[in-house]
Amino acid sequence: MTSVPGPDLELAAQLFEQLRRDSFDGRGVTRDAYGPGEQRAHELMARTARGLDLEVSYDAARNLYLTLRGRDRGAPCAMTGSHLDSVPCGGNFDGAAGVVAGLAVLAGWRRAGFVPQADVVVMGVRAEESTWFPFSYLGSKAAFGKVPRDVLQLRRSDTQRSFADHLAECGGDPARLGEAALVPSRIARFVELHIEQGPVLVEAGLPVGVVTGIRGSLRYRDARVLGEYAHSGAVPRGSRRDAVRAAALLVAAVDADWERMEGEGDDLVVTFGKFFTDPAQHAFSKVAGEAGLCVDVRSLDLPTLEKFDGLLQRRAAELAEAAHVRFELGPRTGSDPAAMDARIQDELTHCAAGRGIAAMSLASGAGHDAAVFAQMGIPTGMVFVRNDCGSHNPMEKMDLADFALGATLLGDVLALPAT
Amino acid sequence: MTSVPGPDLELAAQLFEQLRRDSFDGRGVTRDAYGPGEQRAHELMARTARGLDLEVSYDAARNLYLTLRGRDRGAPCAMTGSHLDSVPCGGNFDGAAGVVAGLAVLAGWRRAGFVPQADVVVMGVRAEESTWFPFSYLGSKAAFGKVPRDVLQLRRSDTQRSFADHLAECGGDPARLGEAALVPSRIARFVELHIEQGPVLVEAGLPVGVVTGIRGSLRYRDARVLGEYAHSGAVPRGSRRDAVRAAALLVAAVDADWERMEGEGDDLVVTFGKFFTDPAQHAFSKVAGEAGLCVDVRSLDLPTLEKFDGLLQRRAAELAEAAHVRFELGPRTGSDPAAMDARIQDELTHCAAGRGIAAMSLASGAGHDAAVFAQMGIPTGMVFVRNDCGSHNPMEKMDLADFALGATLLGDVLALPAT
Repeated sequence: MTSVPGPDLELAAQLFEQLRRDSFDGRGVTRDAYGPGEQRAHELMARTARGLDLEVSYDAARNLYLTLRGRDRGAPCAMTGSHLDSVPCGGNFDGAAGVVAGLAVLAGWRRAGFVPQADVVVMGVRAEESTWFPFSYLGSKAAFGKVPRDVLQLRRSDTQRSFADHLAECGGDPARLGEAALVPSRIARFVELHIEQGPVLVEAGLPVGVVTGIRGSLRYRDARVLGEYAHSGAVPRGSRRDAVRAAALLVAAVDADWERMEGEGDDLVVTFGKFFTDPAQHAFSKVAGEAGLCVDVRSLDLPTLEKFDGLLQRRAAELAEAAHVRFELGPRTGSDPAAMDARIQDELTHCAAGRGIAAMSLASGAGHDAAVFAQMGIPTGMVFVRNDCGSHNPMEKMDLADFALGATLLGDVLALPAT
Repeated sequence: MTSVPGPDLELAAQLFEQLRRDSFDGRGVTRDAYGPGEQRAHELMARTARGLDLEVSYDAARNLYLTLRGRDRGAPCAMTGSHLDSVPCGGNFDGAAGVVAGLAVLAGWRRAGFVPQADVVVMGVRAEESTWFPFSYLGSKAAFGKVPRDVLQLRRSDTQRSFADHLAECGGDPARLGEAALVPSRIARFVELHIEQGPVLVEAGLPVGVVTGIRGSLRYRDARVLGEYAHSGAVPRGSRRDAVRAAALLVAAVDADWERMEGEGDDLVVTFGKFFTDPAQHAFSKVAGEAGLCVDVRSLDLPTLEKFDGLLQRRAAELAEAAHVRFELGPRTGSDPAAMDARIQDELTHCAAGRGIAAMSLASGAGHDAAVFAQMGIPTGMVFVRNDCGSHNPMEKMDLADFALGATLLGDVLALPAT
């Protein structure tokens, strides 16, 4: 049905193995952004690409570009890729699978003598995990010249050394940071393959997914509830200003809102990841006078985020009154949702059907570099590969058979003509 | 209406002032149990008693007994008193007010030449605050020989030195600990005056209260909720095992139970004083895999405690199922409620009416040495004095005019004949 050759899975298996050896930390893998862990992964990909006779180049932020020349070198290229850093003690596939998939596709084509109509570029993106530098999508934003120069002063969370230092050490050019290496009009499509970081494909029993969009977020990272410490036995219900009770009732009220909105069809996830009384002051015999918490709300749909924010604030105001406490939600941060291109979703679904690959559509709850490409106006898509045990931990578990199906799909779409 | 002379309020004011000077720690007062802070308070009371020609004696646990001889020295005595230790950085009145009141009553009687029918004993109790040694009512239990000898090995929380060392240093006799100094049948009544540690009298606008009972407690000090850490954006609602959500829903469910039971007339207070995710693992972008919490439930009524425990366990079981988590409530600890003697409550109410003192009946949510006397079968009562700003903090605020009314009531009841 299709004439596009499949990916080189032997190469993929070798690359995954070498990546793990190069970054094993005793428990998981650690590929530190702009440090030796990430650097070794970039060198491995560049070396492999040279062996395949691809063009290898870098931008000022030391992102890596591996290019297979197409028949029409003047046509807008197709791009793929993902990041090569990991969180500390993370898994081997988060990020890296997308670069390995791109290389496996191009290697398969090379082996079969297949030459695409336009250039195909595999990008090795720097520093996607914001655990290292406190800046979202540092590498992909830098590729479009979308980072302010003061990011050079950011300190890496572990070394406390500046981004400028780390970048220079990896062969980048701090002086040229801010120059755009990528021009949106020259990119026909960007398609990123990534492991799924949730259990949706595992639970559905399907090997791959077509991503509908990347959820945006709204966050109150440092919310506080202020009540009054009091004797747990001596103060009656009506006289209490119990911060734990008020915070718990907020979580419960907002949870009911979430359940209702989800029932009405809204895309929404709500997480109170931290909830804590003060260890210096709390006691089993004291009504808590203070509690800290944070909330992370995500949706594919900006109006849904805004609607939920309104509900959250209303619940807090109601409970402040009813429970005699004060809520200080603190600064709101977050990101906008990024819809994936409808045409690319159709192409992926169509190619999957053509190959007999069972796939489903699903949202990405985690952020990905693809969001930056979409926000730059480039037709963008994502392929998710089934992965058990979540990500950001050493247990992440992607089956190479599932990866093969995802990479096949990726190759098919990268080979399509620009429209 | 009554011929019992009133308390010596000038002495009371001097004693409070001297106590504060002797134990001011820069912010509040600290009278460390079996340490210099408590010791100075005991010495002040013994010195004052000698000046009033009272008998001064000690038991093996170095509790202090100040006795005014009655007309019939063979008759069962009337007792009063309270503890002279404080929590670290506590207030000046918690505990001490009960000893000062006893001395002020006896000083007033001496001044007026009033001799009671039987002996009246003011007890200065040791170590009521379990912040110092992890044992409830150490001093009063020791007076009845109700402490096992292994308490001598308990370490004081700040010094890490043994109770045996501290006791010997204060003049006590570790070898004789466990001997009973008090014989219940020789005590006609025990009446303790204490500041109220809640806001009930303040809110009711009344200076004194007659205590109906001391609430018992049921506690899960180290409960845990075990779920699974997961990505806050990528894991759908139905697949989560969110420990914070489950714990918050438990607090909310149990809060509704409390509200309903209180509406039905049950005496009950419920406090989740600690609630915490793990600082080493929690993050705003992670569903919490674990939460710790504690709950302190108190009631005057043992069946109410048991009923609530049943509800708590049922809610936890329901939520474990619904939220896919595990609750480990851990060991249950607590104490039995101690009802105050009905006749003594009547006497106090009657004396208040006779003096024109506006009083109300109320429960004690906090524990007091009076609970030990009640549990030993001695007719026991308590007088609460209005006190703003709670206790166990430097702000506690008892008005001397309210104290005067409470001490007057105490004197009247101590002067009643044994029945």
